[in-house]
Amino acid sequence: MSHQAAVLGVGTSSFGKQPEVPLAQLAWSAVQEALSDSGVDARGIEAAYVGSVLGPFGSAQRALQGLGIGRIPVITVENACASGTTAFHEACWAVREGRYETVLVLGQEHMSSRITGAIPPDLGDPEGRSGLALPGVYAMAASRYMARYGLTLRQLAQVSVKNHGHALGNSRAQYSGDYTVEEVLASPLIADPLTLLQCCPISDGAAALVVGRAAARRDAVRVRSCALRSGRAWGYRSEHAWGFEIVRETAEAAYAEAGLGASEADLFEVHDSFTIGEILSIEGLGLAAEGEGGRLTESGHTALGGPQPVNPSGGLLSRGHPLGCTGVAQLAEVTWQLRGQAGARQVEGARIGVVETMGGGVAGLDGNACVVAVLERP
Amino acid sequence: MSHQAAVLGVGTSSFGKQPEVPLAQLAWSAVQEALSDSGVDARGIEAAYVGSVLGPFGSAQRALQGLGIGRIPVITVENACASGTTAFHEACWAVREGRYETVLVLGQEHMSSRITGAIPPDLGDPEGRSGLALPGVYAMAASRYMARYGLTLRQLAQVSVKNHGHALGNSRAQYSGDYTVEEVLASPLIADPLTLLQCCPISDGAAALVVGRAAARRDAVRVRSCALRSGRAWGYRSEHAWGFEIVRETAEAAYAEAGLGASEADLFEVHDSFTIGEILSIEGLGLAAEGEGGRLTESGHTALGGPQPVNPSGGLLSRGHPLGCTGVAQLAEVTWQLRGQAGARQVEGARIGVVETMGGGVAGLDGNACVVAVLERP
Repeated sequence: MSHQAAVLGVGTSSFGKQPEVPLAQLAWSAVQEALSDSGVDARGIEAAYVGSVLGPFGSAQRALQGLGIGRIPVITVENACASGTTAFHEACWAVREGRYETVLVLGQEHMSSRITGAIPPDLGDPEGRSGLALPGVYAMAASRYMARYGLTLRQLAQVSVKNHGHALGNSRAQYSGDYTVEEVLASPLIADPLTLLQCCPISDGAAALVVGRAAARRDAVRVRSCALRSGRAWGYRSEHAWGFEIVRETAEAAYAEAGLGASEADLFEVHDSFTIGEILSIEGLGLAAEGEGGRLTESGHTALGGPQPVNPSGGLLSRGHPLGCTGVAQLAEVTWQLRGQAGARQVEGARIGVVETMGGGVAGLDGNACVVAVLERP
Repeated sequence: MSHQAAVLGVGTSSFGKQPEVPLAQLAWSAVQEALSDSGVDARGIEAAYVGSVLGPFGSAQRALQGLGIGRIPVITVENACASGTTAFHEACWAVREGRYETVLVLGQEHMSSRITGAIPPDLGDPEGRSGLALPGVYAMAASRYMARYGLTLRQLAQVSVKNHGHALGNSRAQYSGDYTVEEVLASPLIADPLTLLQCCPISDGAAALVVGRAAARRDAVRVRSCALRSGRAWGYRSEHAWGFEIVRETAEAAYAEAGLGASEADLFEVHDSFTIGEILSIEGLGLAAEGEGGRLTESGHTALGGPQPVNPSGGLLSRGHPLGCTGVAQLAEVTWQLRGQAGARQVEGARIGVVETMGGGVAGLDGNACVVAVLERP
């Protein structure tokens, strides 16, 4: 028995550095909003899939117990930055297969209390031990793109200008601002060529979805497809910049399953953990040809008011990037957009929305994981 | 289309404190053994479910990439000490539903490199912040059992004597020994009434299973059932000791699905992270009536050579307890036993084996998670 999965309700906390707010409290606000939005009682939840990267272990059970959600299977998944959308992927499959009728997806992360000192070195990760953290990996991808395609510093910065501007319409965003390209480029250099305003912040936050059967409610947002792939060893001599191939491969799988292409999507929430991330994402997603992402961004095509807005929420750069929460927050944004409830940042007439999350890679991996989901308005 | 899931192949690393051995290397030895045992090529693996508690994130992808396993969905799950069996639970469902035909289950943990200093306090866990760690939680459960049922210190110690003795037949075990009850009781006190030899060690290790369809191979070990439950708030005034209820509830679900009871099982691998854990597990599993677990242990019923051996591998106390790996190691042991390949520790004629893993609880939870699986010989 196969069922079409759908999003029945969504909720999020606000996003920001909130060291004084316990993780469970962030989760409660997100889950309570999602339950209320869906009309599903806590007792109607049959299983929970939870995205979390930094833990601590057991925190999902502890948060859900406080809402009277216990005894059911609670499965916390880690898939780097794609943890939240991986939880969604597993939830959709379980609903599709008839294993459960109604499940909860929760993404949660309290980075400010978990990243408090030196992280123990991983013996199996020589790049990480040598100091090659994610800003450096993305910076090298940016340098590669610039050298290969003539991507300019101003085009990179335009991603930040756009997303910080979008976040002005999102009261839950961690940061927002009416910046100029010059201001973005003049902010402190983090990893050449990426400046501070081109890097996502440390964030605390939670987001939740109730996932059920599309037939359950007339106003359910349908899941046309959800694809998950993992990276493989990245060839340093590849013609592509790091991270591009896994996004393209996952997007192709998602579009094939949904039976549509990038041109039919009305909006995108993509993995702009660094400005170059949005460029490689929109190219991997087929929104721009390879090498054209910078020019497409400069043209205004991906800005609110343009034909295909990207990251109307403000994206990871501005809404924030609480690791395990991020994918679920992206899905919440697309759901609001497809229901016409996005307020000042509404994409008019949105019918198809695409979510892409890329789990950052280490040790030469072309990304640990990527999830692409295609959602459709009721 | 529903398929019966089965274990097609198993493998493990050796267990112990191995700070100099990278996590990926432990994983490789387990996965290579499991692939070889199953006759399945790495390219035939369609997805991987990985149990891990302490990470670091991305370590599963990194390990699998080294074996040429990439691009497929890799899903790391955390469910406290039940992470490995939770990964197995998810894998079995995916095979049962026809989503994948052949999947890999990997449990891995490198505790000695991850527990290197103070663990950041979790604002949502007041018990943990006050110092109530798991040895204390189990010690209080032991005190409750002793007060309520007359469980004796010698009965508790007998669990340790038995499991250290079983491990003498397991060359991959972290510890083993021919101890007396007096020696166990005379080892240093950790949390009254639990002494050192009654507490599991810090361990590094990995274990892997190839899970596929029972119809695929005549010698496949069939999965009769696999149940997963999460805890709920534990009532401090409950008539039961902490942890008992979730084991009983999960076991009842697993037996109902398998269509059999505890009396039909020939051996058990259970969660003896502390000696009291085995007592409450065998009672929750229905092997002994409530309050009778200590006497049953003293009688020799659960020792190798007795009617229903418990933890022939040496259990968590002696084989070791690398958190996310443990459940998979338990399943590997039961598979070897049911195939008659357990050597010096073989349970003669074993036909039905039961695995139980209990994810330790914090903050008043009656356990974060429990998994009970029933396996049957080909």
